[in-house]
Amino acid sequence: MIRKPKYHPPASGQNLRIIPLGGCEEVGRNMTVFEYGKDILIMDMGIQFPEEDMPGVDYVIPNAEYLRGKEKNIRGVIFSHGHLDHIGAAHILLEKIGNPLIIGRPLTIEMIKRRQEEARRGSSKKLKIVYIKDVKDRINLGSFSVSFFPIDHSFMDAVGTILQTPSATIIHPGDWTIERGPVGRKEIEYNHLSKLKKPTILMLESLGAVNKEMPITEEQMLKNLHGLISSAPGRIIIATFSSQLQRIKQILEYAQKIGKRVAFDGYSMKLNVEIVKELGYIKPMKDTIIPIERIHDYPENKIIVICTGGQGEEMSVLPRIVTGNHRFIKIKKTDTVVFSSSIIPGNERAIQRLKDNLYRLSDNVFHGEIMDVHISGHSNIYDIEKIIKQIKPDYFIPVYANHFMLKEAAKIAYKAGIKKERVFVPDNGSIIEVTRGGVRMFKAGVPTNYIFVDGLGVGDVGQVVLRDRQMLANDGMFVIVTIIDRQTGKVRGSPDIISRGFVYLRESKDLLAQTRRKVIDIVDKAAGSGGAINWVYIKDEIRNKIGDFLHSKTQRRPMVLPVVIEV
Amino acid sequence: MIRKPKYHPPASGQNLRIIPLGGCEEVGRNMTVFEYGKDILIMDMGIQFPEEDMPGVDYVIPNAEYLRGKEKNIRGVIFSHGHLDHIGAAHILLEKIGNPLIIGRPLTIEMIKRRQEEARRGSSKKLKIVYIKDVKDRINLGSFSVSFFPIDHSFMDAVGTILQTPSATIIHPGDWTIERGPVGRKEIEYNHLSKLKKPTILMLESLGAVNKEMPITEEQMLKNLHGLISSAPGRIIIATFSSQLQRIKQILEYAQKIGKRVAFDGYSMKLNVEIVKELGYIKPMKDTIIPIERIHDYPENKIIVICTGGQGEEMSVLPRIVTGNHRFIKIKKTDTVVFSSSIIPGNERAIQRLKDNLYRLSDNVFHGEIMDVHISGHSNIYDIEKIIKQIKPDYFIPVYANHFMLKEAAKIAYKAGIKKERVFVPDNGSIIEVTRGGVRMFKAGVPTNYIFVDGLGVGDVGQVVLRDRQMLANDGMFVIVTIIDRQTGKVRGSPDIISRGFVYLRESKDLLAQTRRKVIDIVDKAAGSGGAINWVYIKDEIRNKIGDFLHSKTQRRPMVLPVVIEV
Repeated sequence: MIRKPKYHPPASGQNLRIIPLGGCEEVGRNMTVFEYGKDILIMDMGIQFPEEDMPGVDYVIPNAEYLRGKEKNIRGVIFSHGHLDHIGAAHILLEKIGNPLIIGRPLTIEMIKRRQEEARRGSSKKLKIVYIKDVKDRINLGSFSVSFFPIDHSFMDAVGTILQTPSATIIHPGDWTIERGPVGRKEIEYNHLSKLKKPTILMLESLGAVNKEMPITEEQMLKNLHGLISSAPGRIIIATFSSQLQRIKQILEYAQKIGKRVAFDGYSMKLNVEIVKELGYIKPMKDTIIPIERIHDYPENKIIVICTGGQGEEMSVLPRIVTGNHRFIKIKKTDTVVFSSSIIPGNERAIQRLKDNLYRLSDNVFHGEIMDVHISGHSNIYDIEKIIKQIKPDYFIPVYANHFMLKEAAKIAYKAGIKKERVFVPDNGSIIEVTRGGVRMFKAGVPTNYIFVDGLGVGDVGQVVLRDRQMLANDGMFVIVTIIDRQTGKVRGSPDIISRGFVYLRESKDLLAQTRRKVIDIVDKAAGSGGAINWVYIKDEIRNKIGDFLHSKTQRRPMVLPVVIEV
Repeated sequence: MIRKPKYHPPASGQNLRIIPLGGCEEVGRNMTVFEYGKDILIMDMGIQFPEEDMPGVDYVIPNAEYLRGKEKNIRGVIFSHGHLDHIGAAHILLEKIGNPLIIGRPLTIEMIKRRQEEARRGSSKKLKIVYIKDVKDRINLGSFSVSFFPIDHSFMDAVGTILQTPSATIIHPGDWTIERGPVGRKEIEYNHLSKLKKPTILMLESLGAVNKEMPITEEQMLKNLHGLISSAPGRIIIATFSSQLQRIKQILEYAQKIGKRVAFDGYSMKLNVEIVKELGYIKPMKDTIIPIERIHDYPENKIIVICTGGQGEEMSVLPRIVTGNHRFIKIKKTDTVVFSSSIIPGNERAIQRLKDNLYRLSDNVFHGEIMDVHISGHSNIYDIEKIIKQIKPDYFIPVYANHFMLKEAAKIAYKAGIKKERVFVPDNGSIIEVTRGGVRMFKAGVPTNYIFVDGLGVGDVGQVVLRDRQMLANDGMFVIVTIIDRQTGKVRGSPDIISRGFVYLRESKDLLAQTRRKVIDIVDKAAGSGGAINWVYIKDEIRNKIGDFLHSKTQRRPMVLPVVIEV
């Protein structure tokens, strides 16, 4: 951990402060605080998926410690879109900060409500909601005047946000890309944002800062997908993210056109399709959508299955189909399987295994490596340069990506003409202060350490528990229960050994017998001499000496836990 | 696991059998058996790096069970090159199969010897070695006539192998690529292999089967690297694989030319440089190579450090430099850091973290995403098509890659004109039989299950131990020690609880107190009624009921281990 100097806010208080609580070091748990005078506005409350060194952790949420005691100043929380790295922590954090107003587009809000209901039934009724019904809506929240602008991202209702304050105007697209050759709408451009009240600050999601790949047009991608769908010799199974509702809509429309049926599977997939149907974003299409249990009522070449599991998640639909654990589908040679999703970092191997198993079952497997059947929702380096040149911001703050990507985005900004002293690369917890005199950044002391969610526990699993889990995972554990006779100071009977994850006990009888003898020796030496028995010393001796003994025999270091009982 | 039908070898025995023992499902643990009549020849003995569901495992080796009882028939083991996925299991397996002759180029053999010495001092003296001194060498081993051909790969002494038998001629490049614009030598072509005795079988490493990227030329890559080296404002630190000796040699030569000094760091890096110096592959260059501890004797812009750690491996050099744990180097803003290596699957996140931390310390970090400073040692789809068209084999067997890549390589072969019935995609343990009548493949019963190496144990960690480790990693463990009075059937005192990796105990006193009370209740109910006490039943009750109780309170499932002691 890097020690950060303490930040002292200026006396007047009538300045704008921008504090990213998450999203500026690793990817995920996006959350930013904007403070003008006493008014606080928040953007996004996302989760981060656990890293390899966080075994058993469900997810990580932003640390909202900074907001404690300031609840009454919070004017609202704006959600840029409904992906989990932007809304996933809302059901935990909103309540913690006193259920302030939430602001978002209908689909985004609906996603938040569903997640809230899953956590605690009925709790979504407590939400105070302002819907962004039209992208031209304008909302005043304390010192903030909030308006919006259209952006492209792999979520139907994603929206960019403009926060106007007396100090500056902030432009924040949220997650974004520039879709090439979009179907049924125009390519988005951002020149109009260059005319906002100065000074303007562009806070830019920068996941594309090292991406040089040129995506194909949406038109071409759909053409590829349509080609696969229309020419599939049998069923076609398309695995995609349940939040890819635009793509799902496009597939539905095409299916209707060519007279194929679509069945959805996967809890979140079915739920999300329900939501967009209810919102009217997708027409009902009674004849086209069929329940998954009815796919056998139709000829195989009339069937499209859209499901979850493209990331290889163990209990999701596609992996269950592949392992033969799906109620209605077993893969046949004639099935076509399409991965219409990108690879989320960390899932590489699970996806590779899934592909291996699929290739054993089907001769028609398609994925991004062999055909363009997906377009990422994130920009590339050319898009970043383009948006900066179109918006011409006075200040540039890259956010929502790994630190090294933020630094690379800064380099793109320099190239696009922004002066070095007007570019700020924040860490989580940095304070960017905007005053009349200009903008300054303090890598200051707002707490942003990990808050782990594991089961029902929020924040109770910490570094100690994780370190133990890692140790247990590597070499297992070894409990030694020793009963010592109070009178004689001798071991009664033979010490009990309980070990898991260390060696296969049935094949290690010699090792266990030797260990028992060693324990008896240790206790005899330490306690047998008469006088008061030092239990702490005996335990330490067992832990250290048996640890070393087991290591010498196996080169493994299980966690040795001595239990000494006096009778 | 897929059940495989049993294979019955033909009566005559005078046929060629090819059996991949590893390398045909996941990447790594490459090893292939060739059998003609009674003569056995082996190629490669590699390791596979552990997957996420193999915690604590050091590596996986091929299962050599098939060779048991056949030791006297083994005529030799050919090693295609010295990367660990081709030689890493030699120090374990060679001894197991009776130390047969080993055949390889000098650098490859030297790597095997070093690894053998590290495992058991003096043991490399037992190796029976035939050096391939010249690529034109020809060796007769039983029914096999063995010759070689030059190939390009990211290992100095990599070589392709031709095995001629009365049934067929096998062409096996090992790992390979087609280097574009190689510096100091010609681009390799394979037309000459089309003239070998028919029928020919091409066994082709197919890691490039889904790779459409066109690599830059070696010339261009070196130009980039030279540019960075010559223009570095301060020191330049280059992280690469310790086996990238060709690259290291090129950097050394350039350093000498422009008068910079090179210091090596990292155990394997220093060792390998020593080896190639001894073999004469690199000239000594006394003035150019300096010990790492002397880098402060020279101006910073005269210093090049070549080190390990580009994969983010915790204890390797570059991560130690970044965390401030290196004895001689701390990163400064003016240092230039170059990752001249590709990302090994599974290391994505560790590398990302390392990059994040480096970008905090230096303004000059370069890696593949922003500049071409590395060329992969593996081919792409165009190379695969090219080599097939040049060699024009009668049969094609893709190997040494994930199953889905082998299938994609098969598709490339069809496109290149090989008939479908002459392409065989094997699994580990498949038997490919070559008779006068043609080639057949049996997905047959040669055992190929994982052999895990963990510390000193080879094969003693199995699925049971791994499952336990995973469980322990996810939710930790919970040992309950209960002392029961034989006379009364009541619990004596309060049960002892030892838990790790589950909850932070200091903050869970309530939960522990409730658990203790529950244990006492369970024992009272089960044992307190008088009569003989059923210990198994009591333990089961504690395990199940406390497991459920903890789950209801935390939604976690630690491993509950009851210890019941009668006094």
